[in-house]
Amino acid sequence: MKEVRYFFVPNANVEKELPTEEAIHALRVLRLKEGDEIFLMDGEGSFYQAEVSLATSKKCFYTIKQVLKQEPTWCGKIHLAIAPTKDMGRMEWMVEKATEIGFDEITFLNCKFSERKVLRTDRIEKIVISAVKQSHKAWKPVVNDMTSFCKFIDNHKCNGQKYICHCYSEIDRDDFFTLIDTFAHNVQDIKPSIGNDITVLVGPEGDFSIEEVRYAIDHGFKSVTLGNSRLRTETAGLSAVMMSQLARRVCTGGI
Amino acid sequence: MKEVRYFFVPNANVEKELPTEEAIHALRVLRLKEGDEIFLMDGEGSFYQAEVSLATSKKCFYTIKQVLKQEPTWCGKIHLAIAPTKDMGRMEWMVEKATEIGFDEITFLNCKFSERKVLRTDRIEKIVISAVKQSHKAWKPVVNDMTSFCKFIDNHKCNGQKYICHCYSEIDRDDFFTLIDTFAHNVQDIKPSIGNDITVLVGPEGDFSIEEVRYAIDHGFKSVTLGNSRLRTETAGLSAVMMSQLARRVCTGGI
Repeated sequence: MKEVRYFFVPNANVEKELPTEEAIHALRVLRLKEGDEIFLMDGEGSFYQAEVSLATSKKCFYTIKQVLKQEPTWCGKIHLAIAPTKDMGRMEWMVEKATEIGFDEITFLNCKFSERKVLRTDRIEKIVISAVKQSHKAWKPVVNDMTSFCKFIDNHKCNGQKYICHCYSEIDRDDFFTLIDTFAHNVQDIKPSIGNDITVLVGPEGDFSIEEVRYAIDHGFKSVTLGNSRLRTETAGLSAVMMSQLARRVCTGGI
Repeated sequence: MKEVRYFFVPNANVEKELPTEEAIHALRVLRLKEGDEIFLMDGEGSFYQAEVSLATSKKCFYTIKQVLKQEPTWCGKIHLAIAPTKDMGRMEWMVEKATEIGFDEITFLNCKFSERKVLRTDRIEKIVISAVKQSHKAWKPVVNDMTSFCKFIDNHKCNGQKYICHCYSEIDRDDFFTLIDTFAHNVQDIKPSIGNDITVLVGPEGDFSIEEVRYAIDHGFKSVTLGNSRLRTETAGLSAVMMSQLARRVCTGGI
């Protein structure tokens, strides 16, 4: 079976050539030539069947043959806000896996007990794009710059529910998956107009401070636990995304 | 808050000293002395509150003060059988994460399209033990040696249901999570006697061969999909474990 060649091209329907890195891959690794078929993804819900129209040593132009609008496979936006781990490798794999599984937005939080206060979001962006291509996602998750915990809480709007995961047994916590798993998964029963969005907060290695948890609760975040397991930060982040995905996925039938 | 020191000691109630590596960690890193409190985990359902009774330069003896039998937090055995990826790092993180999230057994499969035919299970065992300690699991997952696909299918017994995940659209597939998520999560409603075990098979980078899938189906495995997402092998393995965990967890309330 011939592998379909996917390229990530923002505004693919306006542009006429592959971005530099994608062009180098197309020309030097895949050795594409005029007339070869390629697929473009714009990260905003469309794939494009296209053809290489001109291939120079460094540039690769294309002509779009067909626009293939994609249907969302989950309903509502899944937004993970997480304090990055000290070890960047752990964050990077989490972002790769969360993209494969399916989510919409990630924000990195600077919290009281954060061990990492700076982060190269350009690296994260590259990992996201690579995972979007590998897993053929029609929408690219948005990667936001690091922001302070309070600023995020103060300004965050979400057309749905907001949750904060934490380990303080002295604060009542509901089970996250039980709360979110009340969604009609059959495509004909879904009412897309009402708030299905999920925003979920995961703290650093040393957890949020208790004041941070109380501040979030005072601002409309529900206090939750991800279950009985004691999870590392990156595992908690991925678990929250996977639970959200399971709770919001659309079963179209006949997969 | 003082961090509790956990040590992994198989047969902790019979042994009287920490295994060599644990002893070195206790003595040289944590610098424990006679009278210090430690916790032991035997990987078979018990924790032990203990005290260092004698600390030499290389050996650390203990006296058990209290046996703390643990209650399972999920019902039935979760067994993942997976073809290892070419890149061992990807298998290693999956094993770490699956242990944190909670599962019972892993078997590595040698399949027709496997890119990796040999595997050091001693390395995997070390990662599992480290994750068991880090996430305070009372039971250590069993790590089995690599086995051929057919041998596994022929000999596997499970007190519950067996599933094979694959990507062949020409073979009917049910949704894995929908099939397994029919379990009573409230502790008082659970009937532990009947088959809640889940065995789930995940193929290599190039998937199982279609003959392997048919062979498994002929031997009582249900044909399933993990959903709409196109997942890497290690992400599929972790997703299967996470779905199984969500479908079999016991909500004791008041977490």
